[in-house]
Amino acid sequence: MKKSIGAETIIYPTPVLVVGTYNAEGEPNVMTAAWGGICCSSPPCVAIALRKATYTYGNIVQQGAFTINIPSEKHARCADYFGIVSGKRVDKFDVSGLTPVKSALVNAPYIEEFPFALECKLIHQIEIGLHTQFIGEILDIKAEEGVLDEKGKLDIEKVRPIFYAPGANTYYRMGEFLGEAFSIGQEVKKN
Amino acid sequence: MKKSIGAETIIYPTPVLVVGTYNAEGEPNVMTAAWGGICCSSPPCVAIALRKATYTYGNIVQQGAFTINIPSEKHARCADYFGIVSGKRVDKFDVSGLTPVKSALVNAPYIEEFPFALECKLIHQIEIGLHTQFIGEILDIKAEEGVLDEKGKLDIEKVRPIFYAPGANTYYRMGEFLGEAFSIGQEVKKN
Repeated sequence: MKKSIGAETIIYPTPVLVVGTYNAEGEPNVMTAAWGGICCSSPPCVAIALRKATYTYGNIVQQGAFTINIPSEKHARCADYFGIVSGKRVDKFDVSGLTPVKSALVNAPYIEEFPFALECKLIHQIEIGLHTQFIGEILDIKAEEGVLDEKGKLDIEKVRPIFYAPGANTYYRMGEFLGEAFSIGQEVKKN
Repeated sequence: MKKSIGAETIIYPTPVLVVGTYNAEGEPNVMTAAWGGICCSSPPCVAIALRKATYTYGNIVQQGAFTINIPSEKHARCADYFGIVSGKRVDKFDVSGLTPVKSALVNAPYIEEFPFALECKLIHQIEIGLHTQFIGEILDIKAEEGVLDEKGKLDIEKVRPIFYAPGANTYYRMGEFLGEAFSIGQEVKKN
């Protein structure tokens, strides 16, 4: 028998997504957002939801482009910082010491030091309420050689991503391998 | 210097979302989806992207409601199973031995044995491509007493959620506590 705990915005895990954009003057900015995720396989798309009040909101509307940068454990402090201060007041690249790299595909910067980044072209903008959802088509992923496996694919155990727990406002490390998808459920099927 | 690895649908972490619906005859179904997440704080909303070919797609369009059930580690096999077979052919509740509970708020079932479930009313449907995104307003969360802390809030360390790594198609456990959000970044700010 379950208990009502109210209409909270909680799912586990929630990602830590660092959104890279340029302003009208071509100055790079990054902000951290938790509301987002992959939303289509073909065309490959990612969704990110932002408040209108954010600096990044205006940048995405203006440029029609953004990057999604995924932090490793070692970038947790910077990723958290990018969600605390606004690019309206501070040059977050300068303060953090991280390096913006201009994407060759879209007019948005990605973070050189983070393990990988999705380069996205804005294709939909949906007004939901406090948050506006931007859907971007993923044109490419740029990744560090050091987080790829021998076949050139992303290796999550090398990336060591972090995730966010809404409500408690805490970050967690990734844990151990649990099993293969589309496989461990076969046991249930056979029963 | 980053390397291009192509337009893959990969972010880490990706959630394991078990979507509960009723068909026209009021028969309960569940399917597992990876493309989704919270997308608005006010009204509280969650997005879930599904292929038109799924049984759940038709159920959501027809009922205008769904639940999102979050599995614990111990439910990983069932959650995987729910993504392998279609409700068109199989009664997944019957095969898995899990129990559907009718939500009192929306016309959709949640899973009694899973730690918590979001009860959602469909408010937007966005055609993206292979996937259609459904945005549901979260009317309430129903949770097991055993996964709440002393203040009655969800405790992620009691839930022990799992996450999915797209590309490799693998599941991972949650790891250790890393730090407080809106806090560990203050160190960067001061530098």
